[in-house]
Amino acid sequence: MKRRDVIKKGLMGAGGVAAAATLSAPAIAEERITWRMVTTWPRNFPGLGVGAQRLANRITEMSGGRLTVEVYAAGELVPALGAFDAVIEGSAEMSHGAAYYWQNKSRATSFFTGVPYGMTSRELSAWIRYMGGQEIWDEVYDQFGVKGFMSGDTGTQAGGWFRKELNSLADIDGVRFRTPGLGGQVWERLGATVVNMAGGEIYQALQSGALDAAEFVGPYNDLALGFYQVAKNYYMPSFVEPGLATEAVVNKSKFAALPADLQKIVEYACQAEYDQVASDFYANDPIALQTLVNQHGVQVRYFPEDILRAGAEAAKDILGELRNSNDALTKKTADSYFQSLAILRTRTEQVDGRFLQAREQFFQP
Amino acid sequence: MKRRDVIKKGLMGAGGVAAAATLSAPAIAEERITWRMVTTWPRNFPGLGVGAQRLANRITEMSGGRLTVEVYAAGELVPALGAFDAVIEGSAEMSHGAAYYWQNKSRATSFFTGVPYGMTSRELSAWIRYMGGQEIWDEVYDQFGVKGFMSGDTGTQAGGWFRKELNSLADIDGVRFRTPGLGGQVWERLGATVVNMAGGEIYQALQSGALDAAEFVGPYNDLALGFYQVAKNYYMPSFVEPGLATEAVVNKSKFAALPADLQKIVEYACQAEYDQVASDFYANDPIALQTLVNQHGVQVRYFPEDILRAGAEAAKDILGELRNSNDALTKKTADSYFQSLAILRTRTEQVDGRFLQAREQFFQP
Repeated sequence: MKRRDVIKKGLMGAGGVAAAATLSAPAIAEERITWRMVTTWPRNFPGLGVGAQRLANRITEMSGGRLTVEVYAAGELVPALGAFDAVIEGSAEMSHGAAYYWQNKSRATSFFTGVPYGMTSRELSAWIRYMGGQEIWDEVYDQFGVKGFMSGDTGTQAGGWFRKELNSLADIDGVRFRTPGLGGQVWERLGATVVNMAGGEIYQALQSGALDAAEFVGPYNDLALGFYQVAKNYYMPSFVEPGLATEAVVNKSKFAALPADLQKIVEYACQAEYDQVASDFYANDPIALQTLVNQHGVQVRYFPEDILRAGAEAAKDILGELRNSNDALTKKTADSYFQSLAILRTRTEQVDGRFLQAREQFFQP
Repeated sequence: MKRRDVIKKGLMGAGGVAAAATLSAPAIAEERITWRMVTTWPRNFPGLGVGAQRLANRITEMSGGRLTVEVYAAGELVPALGAFDAVIEGSAEMSHGAAYYWQNKSRATSFFTGVPYGMTSRELSAWIRYMGGQEIWDEVYDQFGVKGFMSGDTGTQAGGWFRKELNSLADIDGVRFRTPGLGGQVWERLGATVVNMAGGEIYQALQSGALDAAEFVGPYNDLALGFYQVAKNYYMPSFVEPGLATEAVVNKSKFAALPADLQKIVEYACQAEYDQVASDFYANDPIALQTLVNQHGVQVRYFPEDILRAGAEAAKDILGELRNSNDALTKKTADSYFQSLAILRTRTEQVDGRFLQAREQFFQP
């Protein structure tokens, strides 16, 4: 779709909603506001980019067009990694991305997205909404004059595509593995040679042999990129990305200038979308996996136990550095995160985890 | 709180919101609507009753008071189990409860709440939102002129309080166990003597010895009812209630009469609340469990394997009857549910479940 068509379509969409609102409330003569949402995703990127657009639509619809949100995919208004700065500077009112992209601003941001061996999506939202997580996140983002809301979650991701089967930790040694962020640091300690490259470059690098392995998101996104054509071993689960939350970030002064009802519409639209994106991944990941296995001969495999164990040790070391950070807010975030995780995991592991084990073992209807 | 105070407080709350909206949009002179939400919960019942009130507040806030929702706890306007009929008849515009309470209207309703060895909360929302679940639910409720939205979820529940420790399936024989619904049918096949009674009567029955065991919700709700004083063995997980969704039901013609923006506000408020209630349980269940274990000497135990296995067999039989139902819509619902579960479980068991196992085993930060 051309940029011009995108804008035209956006305006037409908003106009449609506005007309409906006018029909129902003919006496309204109030201010209409347009916000720009810059995102870190390609347009229509499954799960995440689609979620950004749907979030914008929800706000526009619920406000009857009083607050119309126009979405800009990565590179359309600013580059993907310029989204946060655009909101800080006010050249966009809102962004959609992932907090851990802004580690150069604060290392605390990793915790609001997901960390190796850390919280699942349900645990993360419990921490954010009920155990002080949002308040600490607000403190971190106050430094930049912005506020973050959770706006989606991929759930536990896939561990990665490997050209060769893994039989033990020793097989990791020297493997050229595309896996970014803190997860990449974990794999580096396990002996992998970690390579950074954009998602769009992975396929060719796997094909040419420049990569031996690559981790992206999960079946839903990975199927579209065709990795199965060059690497047949699909390892589960990603112990370095047990849940990855996306964020919607608003410029605080632009947000404060909204009437109270529109503020609530923005906030609650993000929360509804958080559930929608998670539902999308929990439905479409296994549907895509079925295609990968049945039509493309992909082998689902599980990491050998010594890799899981060594990964946990490496994660402890790397996260320990964040807990001992000189930055007071990073330390405070890490402390709250680990204290909460210690409580939350008793439910998820002892109740949810054991139910899934029992069902897998005994229930084949 | 007295009924009169409740109404007064409700009106004051709505007035506050309306005043704020007026400040921001002084030219508005449009229709203001008040809806009555009848619920199946006691007022301020942790998790569920609180969620009903918060849902009402969200709608009132996002609409700037244009749609004000007044909440009636069980018995205030109609009895708990009269809520669905009140919405059908239009004496209330909206209700908040659980679909499986209306099994006498359609046996399909169980699937929209949760069934033994069935879907977890993430699986249920994936089915409802992406795999045709909502469309089938709409078909079922169309018969009654109403529409349901998911509005909360308890997550996987606790298995129950037992006065005596369980060492094998034989120990279930003759146990007088309070556990309702399809779960009760499963336990009956395992040899328990299933007793039906309201939540408020359980404590005394356990104390007097009229009950040997009882299952209610999970730590968050159970702590408040004091079962730990008379039964110390708390069994995990509830394989008969792997996830229990609540619903908000609207009268279809009342809903259709709303302007488009208010319809979206109602729908998306329910979805935001779905996530909020789940977060509440995932945070407050383990917090309550900590209190139960550390302050009240409760023993967390896991069901012996032969009970889990026999439970799965019984669940298959009981759910098989629903799949073979003479009611076409019940059969259609069951078929869609099980076809979807077969796909969904590959992700939750192989990815999420295995991550939880690995973390439990290897990661103690």
